[in-house]
Amino acid sequence: MYTGMETESVLYLGIDGGGSKCRARIAGAGREGVGVAGPANPFQNLARACESIQQAAELALADAGLPANTLGRLVAGAGLAGVNIPHVREQLLAWRHPFSALYLTDDIQIAFLGAHAGAEGAVIVAGTGSVGYSSLNGGLSIGAHGFPFADKGSGAWLGLKALEAALLALDALGPDTALLPALEEELQARGLGLVGAMAGAGQREYGRLAPRVLAVAEAGDAVAVAIVREGVGYLEQIAERFLARGHSHLCLLGGLADHLLPWLGEKTLQCLQPPRGQPDEGALLYARQCHGATFTGQAIRGG
Amino acid sequence: MYTGMETESVLYLGIDGGGSKCRARIAGAGREGVGVAGPANPFQNLARACESIQQAAELALADAGLPANTLGRLVAGAGLAGVNIPHVREQLLAWRHPFSALYLTDDIQIAFLGAHAGAEGAVIVAGTGSVGYSSLNGGLSIGAHGFPFADKGSGAWLGLKALEAALLALDALGPDTALLPALEEELQARGLGLVGAMAGAGQREYGRLAPRVLAVAEAGDAVAVAIVREGVGYLEQIAERFLARGHSHLCLLGGLADHLLPWLGEKTLQCLQPPRGQPDEGALLYARQCHGATFTGQAIRGG
Repeated sequence: MYTGMETESVLYLGIDGGGSKCRARIAGAGREGVGVAGPANPFQNLARACESIQQAAELALADAGLPANTLGRLVAGAGLAGVNIPHVREQLLAWRHPFSALYLTDDIQIAFLGAHAGAEGAVIVAGTGSVGYSSLNGGLSIGAHGFPFADKGSGAWLGLKALEAALLALDALGPDTALLPALEEELQARGLGLVGAMAGAGQREYGRLAPRVLAVAEAGDAVAVAIVREGVGYLEQIAERFLARGHSHLCLLGGLADHLLPWLGEKTLQCLQPPRGQPDEGALLYARQCHGATFTGQAIRGG
Repeated sequence: MYTGMETESVLYLGIDGGGSKCRARIAGAGREGVGVAGPANPFQNLARACESIQQAAELALADAGLPANTLGRLVAGAGLAGVNIPHVREQLLAWRHPFSALYLTDDIQIAFLGAHAGAEGAVIVAGTGSVGYSSLNGGLSIGAHGFPFADKGSGAWLGLKALEAALLALDALGPDTALLPALEEELQARGLGLVGAMAGAGQREYGRLAPRVLAVAEAGDAVAVAIVREGVGYLEQIAERFLARGHSHLCLLGGLADHLLPWLGEKTLQCLQPPRGQPDEGALLYARQCHGATFTGQAIRGG
C-alpha cells in the first residue's frame, strides 16, 4: 500500500544514458550521489549499455556513501536513446537488471523533465543527435530519427556534412574549404586517408568532428558557415513550430547548445531560457513519477 | 621460363566482386564459363567475400565443363571494392585462397579494363556507389570514397537523400514529397516506421531504394527531381573533367547507368559510348596482364 512515508524512504536512481557516456544520479532517504560511466546506447551496443548503467549506478552509490548492495533497493528511471525502437525496447525489457524496478523512457523525455522540472515546456536538444520536444497538447517530438539520414544541426550531422565537403574539395568537385585541413588534423590522416579513418564510423565518431567544424565556421570559412547555418536553420524551424504551439520560451540543451548560440537569430535567442535541471535530474523525476503513480506497462521488475 | 605456348594453356579467372553479388568468368585453354554467387565486398564482410569468390569460381568451372579440382590451376584476377583500404588489402593478402595465383585490384580498374578492352579511356560507374576513372597521364580516379559521406549520384546516395527528404516531409519541416509514400511502400513501414526499417542499414540497403527514387523523379515529384539532378550534376562534373583531360568519349557503367540517361545533358550524352566488355571480362584481362607481365607485389600465391 502506498503512503507518503514509504515514498520518503525510497532511494531513486536517475539514468541519463547516451552514445558517449552514462550519468547516474541517486536521491532519496536524505542521500545524494552521482556517477559517470561509459556509453549507454542500447541500440548501438545493448550489453555495453547495461554494463554502463550498472557501473554508473554503483559509482553513484559510492558517491552517496551507500554500500554496493543497496543496488537492489534502487527505483530507477532511465532515459535512453533508441528505446523507442521496438526490438531495442524488447531487449531492454528482457534485461535481468539489478534494481528494485526500472522505468524506461527516451533521452528526450528526461531532458525535458529536467529542464522544466516537470512543468509544461519545450526543449531542443543538439548533441550527437538532435531533437525537439513540446509537452503541450499531449506532447510533440520532432527529430531524433538518427544517423545518417536525419538529426540536422546535430554534432554527427555537422561532422558528416563536413567530411562530404572536405572530400568534394579534395576531388576538386567542390569549393576549397578549411574543413579539409581541419579534418586531416583531427583524424591524423592526409587526403584520402580521411576515408580510411572514417570508414565504418558511426554517429558518435562523426559527432566528435563537430567542434572542429564549428571552429572552422567561426573562423569564417564559407563552406563551414553554410553547413552550420543549414543545421541551425533546421533547429530554428523546430523552435518556431513550438512557439506557434503556445510556448513563450524554450530551452536549448545538449553538448552543442553553447556553441550554436552565436549562430541563432535574434528571435530565437529572445525565447531561450536556461534549463532548471539536467537530464539525469529529469530521469530521477521520471523514476519518482512512475513509482508514485499507478503506472502500467513501463516498469521492469528486478531480475 | 615464359613461352607463348605455356600462356595458351593457362586457365584464367576473372572476378567482379561487389556489395550485391560476385560474378566469375573463366577463359583459356579453349574453355569458357561464368558463375554468379553472393556478395563479395571484403570491407563489409571478409569471410563472406572469400566464400562468394570461391563459390562463383566453382560455378564458372562447372559452366565451363571443368572439374572442381581445376580450381587450383586458375590464375585469378579480382576487382573488389574496398581493396584500396590498407587493412582490407592486408586481410585479403592473408587469405589462403584455392587458386594458383590471385591478382588483386579495385572494382573500378576492372570496369575500366572491360569497357575499353585494355585501351586508354574513361569510365563513370554509377551503381551502389559511384566513381570515375580516366586512364590518361598515369590514371585519375575520382570518387568511390564510400557511404554515407561520398559517392553522389550513386544508388546508395539517392536512397539516403530520399530518406532524409521523406523524414523532413513527415515532420513537416520539408516540402511534401511522393518519396514518403514510395519509401513506405518499398520498406513496408508507415511514417516513423521508416526509421526502424532503415536503422543500422548500410550502403547496399540504401542502394535498393534507388529504383523507387528514380521512379518518383520520373513521375515529376519536385523533391525527387532535385535529388536526381544533384546526383547527375556531380557525375557530369566528373565527365567534364575527363573530357578536359583529352578523352573524346567515355562509358557510363553500373546498375544505374540506363536509368540516369534521361537526366543527362546533351553534351554528356554526345560523348557516351557503349562499353566493349563487362567488368568480369576486365578482371579476366587483368589476370592475363598480371600473369604475362613481370609483375611484382600484387600476386598472392595459393595458400
